[in-house]
Amino acid sequence: MNAALINGVPGERIDCTDRGLQYGDGLFETIRCQDGKPCWLDLHLQRLQRGLARLRIAFHQIDTLRGEIQQLAASDRERCLVKVIVTRGSATRRGYAPAGDETPTRVLSRHPWPTMRRADEFRVGLSAVRLSANPLLAGLKHLNRLEQVMAQMACVEHGLSEVLMLSATPHVISGSMSNVFFAMKQQLVTPELGDAGVEGVMRQVVLNASASLNIEIQVRAVEPQELIDVREAFVTNVRLGVQSVHWLDGRTLVSHDYAQQLRRHVDASTD
Amino acid sequence: MNAALINGVPGERIDCTDRGLQYGDGLFETIRCQDGKPCWLDLHLQRLQRGLARLRIAFHQIDTLRGEIQQLAASDRERCLVKVIVTRGSATRRGYAPAGDETPTRVLSRHPWPTMRRADEFRVGLSAVRLSANPLLAGLKHLNRLEQVMAQMACVEHGLSEVLMLSATPHVISGSMSNVFFAMKQQLVTPELGDAGVEGVMRQVVLNASASLNIEIQVRAVEPQELIDVREAFVTNVRLGVQSVHWLDGRTLVSHDYAQQLRRHVDASTD
Repeated sequence: MNAALINGVPGERIDCTDRGLQYGDGLFETIRCQDGKPCWLDLHLQRLQRGLARLRIAFHQIDTLRGEIQQLAASDRERCLVKVIVTRGSATRRGYAPAGDETPTRVLSRHPWPTMRRADEFRVGLSAVRLSANPLLAGLKHLNRLEQVMAQMACVEHGLSEVLMLSATPHVISGSMSNVFFAMKQQLVTPELGDAGVEGVMRQVVLNASASLNIEIQVRAVEPQELIDVREAFVTNVRLGVQSVHWLDGRTLVSHDYAQQLRRHVDASTD
Repeated sequence: MNAALINGVPGERIDCTDRGLQYGDGLFETIRCQDGKPCWLDLHLQRLQRGLARLRIAFHQIDTLRGEIQQLAASDRERCLVKVIVTRGSATRRGYAPAGDETPTRVLSRHPWPTMRRADEFRVGLSAVRLSANPLLAGLKHLNRLEQVMAQMACVEHGLSEVLMLSATPHVISGSMSNVFFAMKQQLVTPELGDAGVEGVMRQVVLNASASLNIEIQVRAVEPQELIDVREAFVTNVRLGVQSVHWLDGRTLVSHDYAQQLRRHVDASTD
């Protein structure tokens, strides 16, 4: 981290009674910034607002937040990441139920662009950690992320680039830090996220790009046994962009055509 | 809150990079204190240690923590609550995967004993918010509590004292802030928590008391349709103790024998 703003003020400390810490009662966004500007900012702020509405966090400072993100992005001409956390705010009473008079907390931090591990082989395994299903919270980028933490721990230990996570059903939902797309049987498919998973901004960018390119993408439930038919796979997040998968659960994948096509389109438009 | 210790130092601020805030990567305990002493402290610390092991948080300061809890409890001769949060610590790198070199954060806070709403009628409804199932995290009192927050919000709005939460299966798991016991068909039953729910300290105290009193309690899956047979119900947490339910999802319950018997035993021994 090389800069942070808490409620608009430079600093790095928050109140220990903040409901973000106490219960994970909040949301976050991780935003790619390049040439001093945040990429896909409208999509990030729209997703954040959907999450705030679902959690019933009364946040009226979207414009202020937009300005703060732009401010942090502008002061670094290199590529960097700006992370935004919005919580329901410091607890004004004890217990799970909010009192309703909390003032949301904004935490912004700027991080150097991560040094990537060698990207010549992106290896994806299956995680033993399941994503629990809850339609109420599915799709949101909320602060309850222990499943991803546990999955990533094993991912790193096994020397993998990413792991696929299944729901209890089981359906294939996503990577631990990415969304996933599969080409199989003349179809390009990405899992539907009604029960679990995060609706990634880069996933949305790819869905939008596919429409422009006349590439049909089916959004539907994906069964684990379908993975054997996958001939191309790629994962997406704003850091990785469109990342081809070279090795999937024991098999080498040699086809990367869809990813190349979509990556060209996505890299060309970051508004 | 009337006192707080962060890593042993009086204060109320934590680092915004703390993984407790970033991902809910930590655990908590809420401890009843009376006569200057924490109640059931060993059970709390044992549960905390089970959680730390499951989340693979290397925390070597249990004795220090014990001392800090006792210190906060001793300075208030009234009944009060001490809340303990232990997180994996401030992030030493970006992303879900811990680097492994984090130093866990201890957050202790002391709260006045809550003013109870009139306890002459404890009304329990059913929550529309489901508890998602994840055996990896079930039983732990971790910091990912959005489901409880959402359930409690509706509970308060409906003027209820507590709401029962079902898993997706659906099984009856617990209250939103309590464990639950049902007397039905000559059995006293409490839900098993292998897939969801928190293994409450007061639940354990009640299970221990029942053994002393020769009251058999079955720990098993409870189907929602069994609720119609319930003739007595009580909920437990360290704040409520053993709390009789007077109204359950539309029905008045008049039998409170088990709760009275167990409450007498539980109140008599707080070690």
